[in-house]
Amino acid sequence: MAHRFLLRRRVEFADTDVAGIMHFSNFFRFMEVTEHAFYRSLGLSVHPFVHGAEAAGSEVGWPRVHASADYRLPLHFEEEVEIEILVEELRTKSVQYFFRFWKYPDSPDDRVVAATGRFTTVSVSFDAETRRMKAVAIPGEWREKLSVAPEGLIPA
Amino acid sequence: MAHRFLLRRRVEFADTDVAGIMHFSNFFRFMEVTEHAFYRSLGLSVHPFVHGAEAAGSEVGWPRVHASADYRLPLHFEEEVEIEILVEELRTKSVQYFFRFWKYPDSPDDRVVAATGRFTTVSVSFDAETRRMKAVAIPGEWREKLSVAPEGLIPA
Amino acid sequence: MAHRFLLRRRVEFADTDVAGIMHFSNFFRFMEVTEHAFYRSLGLSVHPFVHGAEAAGSEVGWPRVHASADYRLPLHFEEEVEIEILVEELRTKSVQYFFRFWKYPDSPDDRVVAATGRFTTVSVSFDAETRRMKAVAIPGEWREKLSVAPEGLIPA
Amino acid sequence: MAHRFLLRRRVEFADTDVAGIMHFSNFFRFMEVTEHAFYRSLGLSVHPFVHGAEAAGSEVGWPRVHASADYRLPLHFEEEVEIEILVEELRTKSVQYFFRFWKYPDSPDDRVVAATGRFTTVSVSFDAETRRMKAVAIPGEWREKLSVAPEGLIPA
Repeated sequence: MAHRFLLRRRVEFADTDVAGIMHFSNFFRFMEVTEHAFYRSLGLSVHPFVHGAEAAGSEVGWPRVHASADYRLPLHFEEEVEIEILVEELRTKSVQYFFRFWKYPDSPDDRVVAATGRFTTVSVSFDAETRRMKAVAIPGEWREKLSVAPEGLIPA
Repeated sequence: MAHRFLLRRRVEFADTDVAGIMHFSNFFRFMEVTEHAFYRSLGLSVHPFVHGAEAAGSEVGWPRVHASADYRLPLHFEEEVEIEILVEELRTKSVQYFFRFWKYPDSPDDRVVAATGRFTTVSVSFDAETRRMKAVAIPGEWREKLSVAPEGLIPA
Repeated sequence: MAHRFLLRRRVEFADTDVAGIMHFSNFFRFMEVTEHAFYRSLGLSVHPFVHGAEAAGSEVGWPRVHASADYRLPLHFEEEVEIEILVEELRTKSVQYFFRFWKYPDSPDDRVVAATGRFTTVSVSFDAETRRMKAVAIPGEWREKLSVAPEGLIPA
Repeated sequence: MAHRFLLRRRVEFADTDVAGIMHFSNFFRFMEVTEHAFYRSLGLSVHPFVHGAEAAGSEVGWPRVHASADYRLPLHFEEEVEIEILVEELRTKSVQYFFRFWKYPDSPDDRVVAATGRFTTVSVSFDAETRRMKAVAIPGEWREKLSVAPEGLIPA
């Protein structure tokens, strides 16, 4: 069971914008990359509904129903950042994650939170008849591997 | 004075992902595009700090301090969506916007909100000495042209 | 039958990078957007293999086998550009397009080519058995609507 | 002196499109990321003209004048690819790179080239007076560290 994972990532040229800093929308991509790396570290993978996957019936997808970010400090080209993901809530059909972007991750004295964020992700299956997504219970394999972060790790 | 603006936009191939729908991060790009089109409709433009612009002193930038989205329905490739921006709050140094994504914008019977979102954007100037951004009062030209949306237009 | 199409597009904030200009990779997105708008102008649409579409059998996809761009002048935030697409070659199973990016499209005296590009796109069907794409003859509906640009319109 | 560098990278969710594969434009982002990692491995960094950098005078930028890619096999979500960069030509004011995307990089029997590509990048300085970029000789520090790949490593 895991409630926390860390990923290092460097800001790339295409992540920046004319204001000289990482475009605010790319923080969401970094959060997603961290979430997926967290899954892989648990032997899990997000399996999208493509190429007949929906035929399998047991497959689930993970669309977001909420995403947010609060920005404190900009990130610059080639800067390394450490992204922390924490499981904030685990409900029957959805999971909520909390993220921190650690700027200067290797300098204990300077290490500071550049941004925080949240995702709420719902477990859905694809109904072949109605061609729509339907919220379903989180699969057992996922539930066994994810746990909620202990109190105090995430700000209210 | 304006408190609301609408922009039409078609979901492009590169906006989609392997799940067959618009990637959730691209809703933020669509919101920004709507915000900037709103500014242009008022004769305003976001002017980033580049190529010596910071030397001017009077220039301001508009970094986001908050961005969020709530997703209800997916958007698909080539689908046209209408994005509505509303001025939710106007403070001394920051503006908050509320967004709605209207799915099926041309079908009065089907027209439905696919997603909502919010931005909080701060007016900053670039301090050439410290090389940092500093929150400043929203320039008069912007303040004269933006007004807060009347009550009732934005859900609590 | 059509061999040419023009699309107006404004450079968006997220299209730019820290060098203050449109990121070179986004020229390819603009070319694709122009290609797809050209198709729509002819009543055609690129139909990807998703959500059981491959079951239909008659569906084709259009992956690129080649893409290139030559850059002459940078494009800046909020700048309007006119993208021209021309059908350069029409083979049995593939099409080659040529693109021009017209800078200052509204100023006859300044109007200049900022970039050119090429795509080679192959008509493929998805083989459900091998789960692979296979090049097939361009569907009749496409062949009837596309024609090769007359000589002289495209530089050698 | 170096003429070759390898970078591992995993295809991310946001890199894919509705066709279920990596969007063709993202191969260019992967090539750029490999190029910049190659520079960092040599103690070099692309330094864009922002925040007064142009005032320095000696700073150079590296815009692309050409970029191309040939695609043979698709890349899928979460797939790991190895990107190889080779110095193909070193001229007075420009460098040309050749790229290979190695699919199944860890399986000697299956290892195959999914795509190849090329960049031509020009060394420029920013003329503060004309506010334009001007091609200049590649700085000595770069020239000392880059060498052309031996014959036979790059296909004609």
